Amino acid sequence: MAKFIFSNVIGSFVFSENYKLVDELLFKDTEQYREKAIYEEKLIKKHGSLAAPEDKDLYNILLFFKDKKYFSQFYKNNLEITKDSVRKSVNNDALIIQAVNAIDAVDKTINLLAKRLREWHYLYNPEISNSIEDHEKFISLITRTSKIQLLKDLNIGEKDAMGAALKEKDVSAILLLATQINNLYKLKAHYENYLNQLEKDVCPNFMEIAGITIAAKLISHAGSMKRLVEMPASTIQVLGAEKALFRHMRNKRRNLPPKHGIIHEHQLIQKSNSKMHGKAARALADKLSIAVKIDYFKGKFIGDKLKKELVDKFKIQY
Amino acid sequence: MAKFIFSNVIGSFVFSENYKLVDELLFKDTEQYREKAIYEEKLIKKHGSLAAPEDKDLYNILLFFKDKKYFSQFYKNNLEITKDSVRKSVNNDALIIQAVNAIDAVDKTINLLAKRLREWHYLYNPEISNSIEDHEKFISLITRTSKIQLLKDLNIGEKDAMGAALKEKDVSAILLLATQINNLYKLKAHYENYLNQLEKDVCPNFMEIAGITIAAKLISHAGSMKRLVEMPASTIQVLGAEKALFRHMRNKRRNLPPKHGIIHEHQLIQKSNSKMHGKAARALADKLSIAVKIDYFKGKFIGDKLKKELVDKFKIQY
Repeated sequence: MAKFIFSNVIGSFVFSENYKLVDELLFKDTEQYREKAIYEEKLIKKHGSLAAPEDKDLYNILLFFKDKKYFSQFYKNNLEITKDSVRKSVNNDALIIQAVNAIDAVDKTINLLAKRLREWHYLYNPEISNSIEDHEKFISLITRTSKIQLLKDLNIGEKDAMGAALKEKDVSAILLLATQINNLYKLKAHYENYLNQLEKDVCPNFMEIAGITIAAKLISHAGSMKRLVEMPASTIQVLGAEKALFRHMRNKRRNLPPKHGIIHEHQLIQKSNSKMHGKAARALADKLSIAVKIDYFKGKFIGDKLKKELVDKFKIQY
Repeated sequence: MAKFIFSNVIGSFVFSENYKLVDELLFKDTEQYREKAIYEEKLIKKHGSLAAPEDKDLYNILLFFKDKKYFSQFYKNNLEITKDSVRKSVNNDALIIQAVNAIDAVDKTINLLAKRLREWHYLYNPEISNSIEDHEKFISLITRTSKIQLLKDLNIGEKDAMGAALKEKDVSAILLLATQINNLYKLKAHYENYLNQLEKDVCPNFMEIAGITIAAKLISHAGSMKRLVEMPASTIQVLGAEKALFRHMRNKRRNLPPKHGIIHEHQLIQKSNSKMHGKAARALADKLSIAVKIDYFKGKFIGDKLKKELVDKFKIQY
């Protein structure tokens, strides 16, 4: 009598050869659906050998579930499972991508506001704007010290100073901007630390070879760890240099293929002789390709070993 | 004997017709130089009528000051006067320009970071990102409330929520960005208030007609109040529409002249019928041109009267 066994999001069901329902085990939640094999096992033990329906049999069994009694339950459970998988699809590599993009945006912001601050502060105290080129030093200095103290530090008498005599509210408007930029520097440092923690968790091998920033940029550019794993090493090598790559592909005679994309910033390439750039990029991409696969499939940490091979080969410490 | 009177940054001097020094009053500081008329008066009283040297006489007297004894003093005083005028050249309109540019930069920054925040927060709680379009509301909401409270407000059960179950450090990284953007909103409000104060001081008439933001943009675009004063009303009318203006000048047949530049954003034009835009822009620019001259030459406040004329003419309240 009992012939077919069939499971969906509602439960596991046994049907006769005329597609009449013989037995059923309904699932209470989506967790049980994930363990449907257990429930099918139970039914098979009870009813003897059962086959999975195919073709016409499957079609008729599916018709059975279009019945209103089952349909609403079917819809409800399906929706819940979809939501659940959306929730779980946020992997840690998505967080890495968000963090590195946030660092990038904060960096742009700092530059934009710091240029503005310098122009503004120039009215007040041009000597200081001129004497300190680094944005971060400049900002931390002017937020920490008064004008008179600063001029002393710079060996400039107050009478020799060129800046305008501004009112207190004018000066405080300038200092508010400096304080804000200072906070953005702190935020950036926090995110760099956070990114480091994420990568230690998600891709320790990859991070060991690439460095924190380049690792994150590669994952961000590829879209996910999974897509990086599926790429050949030669693609990882030129990731981020798509423009040069396509230019080469359009006109091979006039345009050489790019040697490297995002990994161009890597110490191994920066510190090596320019003639060796191609070789270094290839070797680096090879190791990165191995490392990202180990991380994705939760292998052991051998990043230090892989890195040592690169260091020894190119005689470049990084 | 005494024939010529001559002043420079060092002092006022009386020379004989053979260019011998007869008398001198040395200045102690740059303030005295500014009041040189007083010292010349004194010398004239003492020596009788004296003439200002010209041509050959002037040349010979200038030769006298190339003498080393005077030169170092001359150099020192000149430098001090230059510094002094740099200090004084920072007018309040320079502060208006810096303030409006700072508001602009903070605005760009907020937009950049808010987009990043939304994308990031989307992983955690997509319902909220979707349901609140305004950046400021969105940010103030997520910085004030916990996820569960928020879902309740939106009538979404926690089980129905789609976002990922993030760890505390992931959520706090997101909230830190939101807090920072919130602070940038506060900074922007502060600067808007500061700009308002500056304009009340520097250009009350101009601000009454133009509104705070447009007034600041016009001054910033012109470079200073002085340059605005020197412009004809028709130039103020198209300030900021240089591209369209030059296109028109290159090819008059195909391209109409622009009707308005920065003042395009003004309520008088925004609220008027599009056929009236040209007329409204012309009338507005005329009043602005009058108002900026009154402010520059420290005239009385008649901004309310000028504004009323525009309001009455176009039947548009602003």
